[in-house]
Amino acid sequence: MVGGGVGSFIGNVHRLSSRLDGNYDLVAGAFSSTAKKSLQSGLKLGIEKKRIYSNYKEMAKIESLREDKIEAVAIVTPNNSHSEIAIEFLKKNIHVICDKPLTATIAQAKKLASVAKKSKALLAITYNYSGYPLVHQAKEMVSNGSLGKIRFVEVKYATDYMATPVEKTKLKQAVWRTDPKQAGIGGCILDIGTHAYHLCKFITGLKAIEVSADLHTFVSGRKVDDHAQVQINLEKNAKAILWASQIAIGNENSLSIRVYGTRGSIEWCQESPNQLWFTKLNSTKQLITRMGKGSMLDLAKYSRVPAGMPEGYIEAFANIYSEIAIKINKINTTSTVFPNIEDGIDGMKFVETCIKSSNMKSKWTKLKKL
Amino acid sequence: MVGGGVGSFIGNVHRLSSRLDGNYDLVAGAFSSTAKKSLQSGLKLGIEKKRIYSNYKEMAKIESLREDKIEAVAIVTPNNSHSEIAIEFLKKNIHVICDKPLTATIAQAKKLASVAKKSKALLAITYNYSGYPLVHQAKEMVSNGSLGKIRFVEVKYATDYMATPVEKTKLKQAVWRTDPKQAGIGGCILDIGTHAYHLCKFITGLKAIEVSADLHTFVSGRKVDDHAQVQINLEKNAKAILWASQIAIGNENSLSIRVYGTRGSIEWCQESPNQLWFTKLNSTKQLITRMGKGSMLDLAKYSRVPAGMPEGYIEAFANIYSEIAIKINKINTTSTVFPNIEDGIDGMKFVETCIKSSNMKSKWTKLKKL
Amino acid sequence: MVGGGVGSFIGNVHRLSSRLDGNYDLVAGAFSSTAKKSLQSGLKLGIEKKRIYSNYKEMAKIESLREDKIEAVAIVTPNNSHSEIAIEFLKKNIHVICDKPLTATIAQAKKLASVAKKSKALLAITYNYSGYPLVHQAKEMVSNGSLGKIRFVEVKYATDYMATPVEKTKLKQAVWRTDPKQAGIGGCILDIGTHAYHLCKFITGLKAIEVSADLHTFVSGRKVDDHAQVQINLEKNAKAILWASQIAIGNENSLSIRVYGTRGSIEWCQESPNQLWFTKLNSTKQLITRMGKGSMLDLAKYSRVPAGMPEGYIEAFANIYSEIAIKINKINTTSTVFPNIEDGIDGMKFVETCIKSSNMKSKWTKLKKL
Amino acid sequence: MVGGGVGSFIGNVHRLSSRLDGNYDLVAGAFSSTAKKSLQSGLKLGIEKKRIYSNYKEMAKIESLREDKIEAVAIVTPNNSHSEIAIEFLKKNIHVICDKPLTATIAQAKKLASVAKKSKALLAITYNYSGYPLVHQAKEMVSNGSLGKIRFVEVKYATDYMATPVEKTKLKQAVWRTDPKQAGIGGCILDIGTHAYHLCKFITGLKAIEVSADLHTFVSGRKVDDHAQVQINLEKNAKAILWASQIAIGNENSLSIRVYGTRGSIEWCQESPNQLWFTKLNSTKQLITRMGKGSMLDLAKYSRVPAGMPEGYIEAFANIYSEIAIKINKINTTSTVFPNIEDGIDGMKFVETCIKSSNMKSKWTKLKKL
Repeated sequence: MVGGGVGSFIGNVHRLSSRLDGNYDLVAGAFSSTAKKSLQSGLKLGIEKKRIYSNYKEMAKIESLREDKIEAVAIVTPNNSHSEIAIEFLKKNIHVICDKPLTATIAQAKKLASVAKKSKALLAITYNYSGYPLVHQAKEMVSNGSLGKIRFVEVKYATDYMATPVEKTKLKQAVWRTDPKQAGIGGCILDIGTHAYHLCKFITGLKAIEVSADLHTFVSGRKVDDHAQVQINLEKNAKAILWASQIAIGNENSLSIRVYGTRGSIEWCQESPNQLWFTKLNSTKQLITRMGKGSMLDLAKYSRVPAGMPEGYIEAFANIYSEIAIKINKINTTSTVFPNIEDGIDGMKFVETCIKSSNMKSKWTKLKKL
Repeated sequence: MVGGGVGSFIGNVHRLSSRLDGNYDLVAGAFSSTAKKSLQSGLKLGIEKKRIYSNYKEMAKIESLREDKIEAVAIVTPNNSHSEIAIEFLKKNIHVICDKPLTATIAQAKKLASVAKKSKALLAITYNYSGYPLVHQAKEMVSNGSLGKIRFVEVKYATDYMATPVEKTKLKQAVWRTDPKQAGIGGCILDIGTHAYHLCKFITGLKAIEVSADLHTFVSGRKVDDHAQVQINLEKNAKAILWASQIAIGNENSLSIRVYGTRGSIEWCQESPNQLWFTKLNSTKQLITRMGKGSMLDLAKYSRVPAGMPEGYIEAFANIYSEIAIKINKINTTSTVFPNIEDGIDGMKFVETCIKSSNMKSKWTKLKKL
Repeated sequence: MVGGGVGSFIGNVHRLSSRLDGNYDLVAGAFSSTAKKSLQSGLKLGIEKKRIYSNYKEMAKIESLREDKIEAVAIVTPNNSHSEIAIEFLKKNIHVICDKPLTATIAQAKKLASVAKKSKALLAITYNYSGYPLVHQAKEMVSNGSLGKIRFVEVKYATDYMATPVEKTKLKQAVWRTDPKQAGIGGCILDIGTHAYHLCKFITGLKAIEVSADLHTFVSGRKVDDHAQVQINLEKNAKAILWASQIAIGNENSLSIRVYGTRGSIEWCQESPNQLWFTKLNSTKQLITRMGKGSMLDLAKYSRVPAGMPEGYIEAFANIYSEIAIKINKINTTSTVFPNIEDGIDGMKFVETCIKSSNMKSKWTKLKKL
Repeated sequence: MVGGGVGSFIGNVHRLSSRLDGNYDLVAGAFSSTAKKSLQSGLKLGIEKKRIYSNYKEMAKIESLREDKIEAVAIVTPNNSHSEIAIEFLKKNIHVICDKPLTATIAQAKKLASVAKKSKALLAITYNYSGYPLVHQAKEMVSNGSLGKIRFVEVKYATDYMATPVEKTKLKQAVWRTDPKQAGIGGCILDIGTHAYHLCKFITGLKAIEVSADLHTFVSGRKVDDHAQVQINLEKNAKAILWASQIAIGNENSLSIRVYGTRGSIEWCQESPNQLWFTKLNSTKQLITRMGKGSMLDLAKYSRVPAGMPEGYIEAFANIYSEIAIKINKINTTSTVFPNIEDGIDGMKFVETCIKSSNMKSKWTKLKKL
């Protein structure tokens, strides 16, 4: 693991998620920006002292020479360092599991993509919300035609922890997320907007063709956007509204999606992840529950407990990790599903284009090929 | 009443709503486009035969000459006739209660406005959703600062009854609503988009300054829009997303609004109208119920039964009627709240500007003064 | 109307409900216990002075002699006077619409029943919750076998307005309800327990055979029970749990029922009356909405507005009134559904037997024939 | 681990839960009733071959002699073997983590209790639902007086997987649960009724004094009860209704509790475990979320991710395991909270008394000391 010292939220999530299904052991790391802090964290995490590194370069170099070297590395640092760290490990053919977004800038993304192409190792990106079992079911229902042709998607990601200038209180997470140098080209649109976009793309299989965006900063003094409204024209003439906000008081982590087709609709919300609403044209609304009646057989693969026993965020995150483990162990299988570098690049292109559009008074702007 | 023959949905709603609180008696009408049908309907409704008229002109003329003439007339015809009928009665100084939207075109709205200005009679418009007690509470909470400065509004009106080409099955309501000659300048944006806009304006007290709209027709062969996505810059630097759809399968009459301010937020949905969610910054979410704890004293004025006993659509509609009755009876009072001709005109301007913007690829377009 | 002076909650409910569908005109009344107050209320209600009576006896006598006499009377007084008032009008062959419970004591119920039997007039009792459209649908679904054989019913009526000794604050409704002389043999069990029992019987068609009850008074100093827990053996080997409480903080008027059969289950709650949950064995849960998909055709009879536009308490109450009106107008029809004297007597027997059982340490006790 | 071969539901739950927080390694086991199956399961689980045992006696004997012997054993076999297995390990001073219920009979419970008393090792029992963070908050809110004096508790555990005679289809879990020899003295009351009782006791701190129970078997041919209705007089004059059912179609794993006091109430449902409803007397209902505003500081101890990111069943189960680990590691600490042998015995007494009462036509029956 690179980053994720003790006290880090996302580092701990990666550790819990990788451990849950017994597919990963955490054996080495460069956990912090200073050697001392890295050592402290590593020891607390029970890592053997000599595999606690001062920095990621040292780690990549030394680990790659060990016989029992790490198979994969999780990168859980601020956005602007993702690229250089990932490149270092990919070059050593060590698999990379990178937190989202892929990078902080488009230039970084391009560079990383070109390295990844040549590497024998995988690059996965933890758009973790696509790990929820019922999100897989939603994807399958779209793909098997249960909804007919997709017309309209509403996806939103509402949170409120930045409704006030929390970065001034030195809340660590808020500080780097609102610092363009560490966070990259966007604020809210990059931090959570990309999650929403990935969820839409994952479920519908439709990419954005063009966007009309309005990014805004509500909290005065903040250096990045904290609110994003985007209209999207998706492939196959479908339309979408996406909004993401960090100032929407009363929302903790409210990512939700509604997909409307010619023959039916679905509705899913991350805060009630064991439920999927489905309405067929001219029928009553149905409540599909994870592993309950109406749940696809395949969901067993992404579930640990029966219907009625809630699974949550860690389990969904663990599903991403476990799919990656399967892929790593049987490198030729094609049945695993997890977000990869293409998804990471799509996310960056989406953000870049939203920013462009917003800077041109919401002019409809096409997403370009990288 | 003009229009609203037996079998008409909205005609019956006006009758039920006006009768509920005992403030109105239905004594005369021109209920249909033919004299015969008008007579049939009038008799079924128990109207005295000689006060059942063949057409609205006859009605306005004869009634205005009676000693016991009608005090007010409800207009519940398709949009394109609102203007001429309202003008006829206003000229006779008979109060007009007009179904929404005000008119079918801007030209009609202008003409009507100029007549209304000169008339001694009132013109009210039944944007009925603003009649719900908790919508009044929401308005009051915004106005008394409970939410702080308003930042963002999400308002949507999702329905599904036009998800297929129902107008071809001769469903009466769908037929005229999809016929530009009868409906007017818009489809979905005019029929339900205006309700959503009025609700936003009513609660926040903020008008739209400019819009970036994308109107779309999903059902092939349909002559008007059946889906509208609008970004709005409101007064005082607030932003809004409004969408209205007639093809959103799984939604019956799902009008909902969320208002986010610097100090709190509220959320209300027409399908659960006795509940209002309120979150103060840094506090738990609270469920305010009509006439329950947390409900304003003033709500008693708009309520008939205590907390826990649901009130609904008819009661909210009746609140509009009763406010109008109070106004009519004591012409100088200022404490009544009901949508008036200004609101009707605002709605028409909003629709017109959305159409303009949509025709210019969602270009941000300012609402002009009439 | 007898009782229901201005300021009375239930009197106003009867007035609104009878007026809504245009089937009744309020033309006479003895609105209060004193002649003066009755007059004041009557005048405020717009009743002709000479038809405002000092007491119910005078009213029954004089009205019955008029050519344009009242066809029906609504009795909305405290429980202990229901019987004598109803008898007076039934003897004059004037239809009686009596608020629940039927009487205050079993002796009164017996006497009333014997008079009613001989009268040409109807006696209806406003167990109003059975007037909700989806309660009719639930009844139909049980009766057409959608649920299979009924196994278990959970019905509860939770309120909280008596969680503290409100009767000491002179809250009028609480005062008489906690005074055994005015309320009768029970407190909570009589006031709201009977509503719950009626709802169970109405939907399932199953009467109680025997009960094991535990009535309790939580608020010290209160003279009647304010909390009732009852286990019921229903006909056809079905079982039920019924509880009613006036001290359940956080509940406004939370009457809900769940019916479990061998092939499916339903769930309905009075506070969301436009929704009925239905689960077929081995299927997903379905949300049936009033007049929506999955709604029976017959529901149109009990509905005024389409799906998605909420109806509520007044509308359900009005359904009872309108069914009675139909019955009164076409006395031989059999298709009307409203609670009658049998239902009133069943309610009294249920209460009496619960009290007996509770007094014998919850001994299972059979309901006797009257 | 004893029991829990590959394919076992609860065995896997114990493995996931013990692994999640990194406090346990699974190193030995007797996973099945036959040596061959035990070996197969052990190997699949990655256990060293020589620590995969043919039976629990062998395991207890050999492990207790190893220098690196197991510190604790999880017992996840059918109820009737819990006692003898636990005794074997307790005698070797190996900690026991036993699935619920404690034993199959009262005699077994007594014997186990006497052994446990003498052992230096712990015995914990996985009443896992008390591991949910908001259940801890509920307990704390009762104990700090937020609800005032407790008056009434409603607790229910509704499931439907035994609504038909599934034991005849050889569904493994249903087979042993409906076989009195393996399951013990009760069916539904023992299997899930004890969970409900423990939850009530855990949150309120009040034990049952006496019960009036009605146990029933709805599915014909079934040898144990599949539905239980219990009225409870709790300590301090509080009352409770508890029902548990395995035939309540439409319920997956619906364990819920409502606690009503003189000053407030709370409501929690296992299927939405990140939400706790709280109503203070004369206030609006509040939604407390895990780690959100209104959440106790102490909840951090039982949480892994912030508010808005759902935790579920595995996490709650893991909380029990982690509390036990803390206790094992620092044997003198008193701040850990997990269900112990007292709770196990209380559960058995509750079941025994319910059965007695039910056999005496619901006669109120006191719980005796063991």
